[in-house]
Amino acid sequence: MVTGELETLMKCSNEDLMPSGGNISKHRTKDVSTTYCFCLWTQGQMRDASMTIQMALHLDKRNKKFDDLPIIYFVTPTYPRREQVAELTRLGQTLMHIVNLHWIIADDVPTCNTMVGKLLKKFGIPFTHIASPMPDVYRKSSVVPRGVANRRAALGWIRKNIHSGVLYFGDDDNTFDLELFDEIRFTKKVSMFPVGLIGDYSVSSPVLKEGKVIGFFDSWPAKRKFPVDMAGFAVNIGFLLSHPHATMPYKAGYEEDQFLVSLGLKLEDIEPKGNACTEGRFTRGNYRSDD
Amino acid sequence: MVTGELETLMKCSNEDLMPSGGNISKHRTKDVSTTYCFCLWTQGQMRDASMTIQMALHLDKRNKKFDDLPIIYFVTPTYPRREQVAELTRLGQTLMHIVNLHWIIADDVPTCNTMVGKLLKKFGIPFTHIASPMPDVYRKSSVVPRGVANRRAALGWIRKNIHSGVLYFGDDDNTFDLELFDEIRFTKKVSMFPVGLIGDYSVSSPVLKEGKVIGFFDSWPAKRKFPVDMAGFAVNIGFLLSHPHATMPYKAGYEEDQFLVSLGLKLEDIEPKGNACTEGRFTRGNYRSDD
Repeated sequence: MVTGELETLMKCSNEDLMPSGGNISKHRTKDVSTTYCFCLWTQGQMRDASMTIQMALHLDKRNKKFDDLPIIYFVTPTYPRREQVAELTRLGQTLMHIVNLHWIIADDVPTCNTMVGKLLKKFGIPFTHIASPMPDVYRKSSVVPRGVANRRAALGWIRKNIHSGVLYFGDDDNTFDLELFDEIRFTKKVSMFPVGLIGDYSVSSPVLKEGKVIGFFDSWPAKRKFPVDMAGFAVNIGFLLSHPHATMPYKAGYEEDQFLVSLGLKLEDIEPKGNACTEGRFTRGNYRSDD
Repeated sequence: MVTGELETLMKCSNEDLMPSGGNISKHRTKDVSTTYCFCLWTQGQMRDASMTIQMALHLDKRNKKFDDLPIIYFVTPTYPRREQVAELTRLGQTLMHIVNLHWIIADDVPTCNTMVGKLLKKFGIPFTHIASPMPDVYRKSSVVPRGVANRRAALGWIRKNIHSGVLYFGDDDNTFDLELFDEIRFTKKVSMFPVGLIGDYSVSSPVLKEGKVIGFFDSWPAKRKFPVDMAGFAVNIGFLLSHPHATMPYKAGYEEDQFLVSLGLKLEDIEPKGNACTEGRFTRGNYRSDD
């Protein structure tokens, strides 16, 4: 596999090809309001540039078999800005530690960005690169629903191509403790945990009584049934597929809640993680106090 | 080794003990203007909490021998703020990829912070944790020389305890490409490379002619001989030790330049990295365009 082939495919033709499982593939499909373009890059394929010591050791690890571990589908919405490569680099270097992880990067651009595609190849992580522009109508909203088109595109790809595993939404500017991944990997329906550096209270978390979730602590309840952050929960993909109409609305601030409601989630279904929700595993980006 | 022992040592007694090479040690010394406190945590010692899959694989890697690779002493000045743990987590998860690296974390606090100490143990990286408060006299400056007391403390520890390897200054909010570490590891005197997302030009870099550094491109020259960023260079520790009076001044904006000048560095000594300074390996923090 040479780099040139990937670049060609990133331009995305009009053909409707399904990923063929094990090689670069592309897939184009229609949503209600936009068109997505996919480029799939699978495990075992690496850049043809000289390999660093770190990368060689990383691949040693990846080549071990972990057949009994469900795959985590880590969905990252992103958008063009000058720090995009830096943020994706930092996140990619965290995800490199995680075995059986497939990274879905959905970019708010009309066609896959070549620079981002080249960067993604560097990590040696199986990934799907999606161009998923926000429909123009939402760019004019007073509160723009950022990342929704990207996450909907990722959900669409998962519904078409994946049968099991765990879904997790992780933005490119956040910090993820490695323990998070062990904890969410065996999610049965929906798991949840505290999120740090968010909102006026600086923490958002499920509230537990005798090990069961009975409510939520969040500085912006806004009459939401599930006042949680986008990266404060993980979803079993079998459970997702059993709700074929579950989706995320273009409604800023209510994306998480309405997605979880559309899954028919009940409080008693929630699996609390993070040492019974006493420890955070994830912190929001945009948290600087002294910029 | 149990956690309790580390915590006790972090309080730092008045005894003047040198690190004993292979176990937790402490060292207290006097600078012109402040007192530092050290806690050394060495390779092979791990937290006694349950180990994640990622951590087990990480230790597999660390247990391989790389005797022919010089050790990189990665110096990170840090200070208490609400995002400190998040920033150190993200950086630590990048440094976990690097073999033969010793992390020196120097915190702007009077005594080692227990929470930071516990966090550092999680990464399985050999580290030295230093409490190096900025002298009060500099806190009142119109432009505060942040990080200088920390870096001076790290230099002091290196001078007393280390004989070879490579010194690198890396802040906790920056992004480091893994290729950086391969490139600086065999630095003979001083290596340099471009830095991204910095200043009005968004890049700071040595300028090359026929493979040799002939000048610098930086948006704030300020009559500096070496207008470079703190993390835009690495120094061979033998070279550092051959200049026993080399140090960093408490002069905001001029720390890098005057440190390099105090090393007697000449333009022709500089080893350009980053594919002949055409590619960045490092980007500054505080770079957000849309906070």
